[in-house]
Amino acid sequence: MITVHGFSPSGNCHKLRLLLEQLGERYDWVEVDSSQGQTRTPEFLALNPNGKVPVVEFSDGRTLSESNAILYYLADGSDFLPADLWQRAQALSWMNFEQYSHEPCIAVARFIAGWTPLDSPRRAELPKLRERGHQALAVMERHLQTHQWFTGDRYGIADIALHAYTDVAEHGGIALSPYPAIRAWLARVRATPGFIALPEPGPQAARLIAQTL
Amino acid sequence: MITVHGFSPSGNCHKLRLLLEQLGERYDWVEVDSSQGQTRTPEFLALNPNGKVPVVEFSDGRTLSESNAILYYLADGSDFLPADLWQRAQALSWMNFEQYSHEPCIAVARFIAGWTPLDSPRRAELPKLRERGHQALAVMERHLQTHQWFTGDRYGIADIALHAYTDVAEHGGIALSPYPAIRAWLARVRATPGFIALPEPGPQAARLIAQTL
Repeated sequence: MITVHGFSPSGNCHKLRLLLEQLGERYDWVEVDSSQGQTRTPEFLALNPNGKVPVVEFSDGRTLSESNAILYYLADGSDFLPADLWQRAQALSWMNFEQYSHEPCIAVARFIAGWTPLDSPRRAELPKLRERGHQALAVMERHLQTHQWFTGDRYGIADIALHAYTDVAEHGGIALSPYPAIRAWLARVRATPGFIALPEPGPQAARLIAQTL
Repeated sequence: MITVHGFSPSGNCHKLRLLLEQLGERYDWVEVDSSQGQTRTPEFLALNPNGKVPVVEFSDGRTLSESNAILYYLADGSDFLPADLWQRAQALSWMNFEQYSHEPCIAVARFIAGWTPLDSPRRAELPKLRERGHQALAVMERHLQTHQWFTGDRYGIADIALHAYTDVAEHGGIALSPYPAIRAWLARVRATPGFIALPEPGPQAARLIAQTL
């Protein structure tokens, strides 16, 4: 049995929930509210010295951190990760793109909009984050104009990794209307068997998102 | 034959040179100066729509971007990447750590110090980048207090990925003196057969680094 230590509103954590659901694996979920400092406690730092969710813990005590490394490990041998080395390289390339060029703008803009006070100085970062978020979406749009998926010719872990925050980019003020190929791909991902969406933001986050310019 | 499109002072690009040298593979190197806009030309964007080095190009025209995905692809089947799935997961976890929690502070602090003018507004980012860089180094130090390497029990691609910018962290004003285990590991990496160091910064970058507070 696998235990996921994760924060449900986090796309990085939701990636694991989506894969585990689609694999049909049983797992426990321990909620860790990273917005309230719960990833900085001594107990949590013993699981992941880098103080970030998600972390998975196996019944023999082994732990693994970094969402995309966990996706790769859990998907091995399944339809969500091709065995072919070149296709695996494509999946890793897109997952690195996600963590370096996509998540740090699109996820962070969403976090600032919904999970920081309206007078937070971090809100000054939003224009730059949105600009860079659009650059990342343009790269995805270009790929999706000629491909159905990000991992070879079928849905897989690179799609799961990129779907998480793309699907909620508008929470951070990054409109998806200019990207028809992305919107069609989001709908294809949502139609995969066993799909579950990231939970809607809670009332406080929803209010902050609505009030964010 | 592989062609690497890369910028020699970039640690992300140097990772590939180091692995290819240590694998004993022949390769061509095409210099692309990303500090002078050469990754934004139409020709380069045709190789990598994300406009970043490194990119590798194979003789059949296939291309692959993202330094750590390329390391993983090139190292498959060699001593630099264990076949064991759990060890591969560790390597991927550390390489994701590198791209998310390490490179965006340590490499960016170095870039700002050496490759932007002394009056660049980006220099205001340095204190925060250095603080976060030290957090990343503390995570590495803790691991290295009880492990020789980052990929299982021998030198491998996670070491190559993490070595690149750690070795030159001081260019960005991030001192390595508080980290004895990291300094011992840097020396072990430098002693591996076929090791080549990142080139020293050119005269202009060296002058800017020396003048950076």
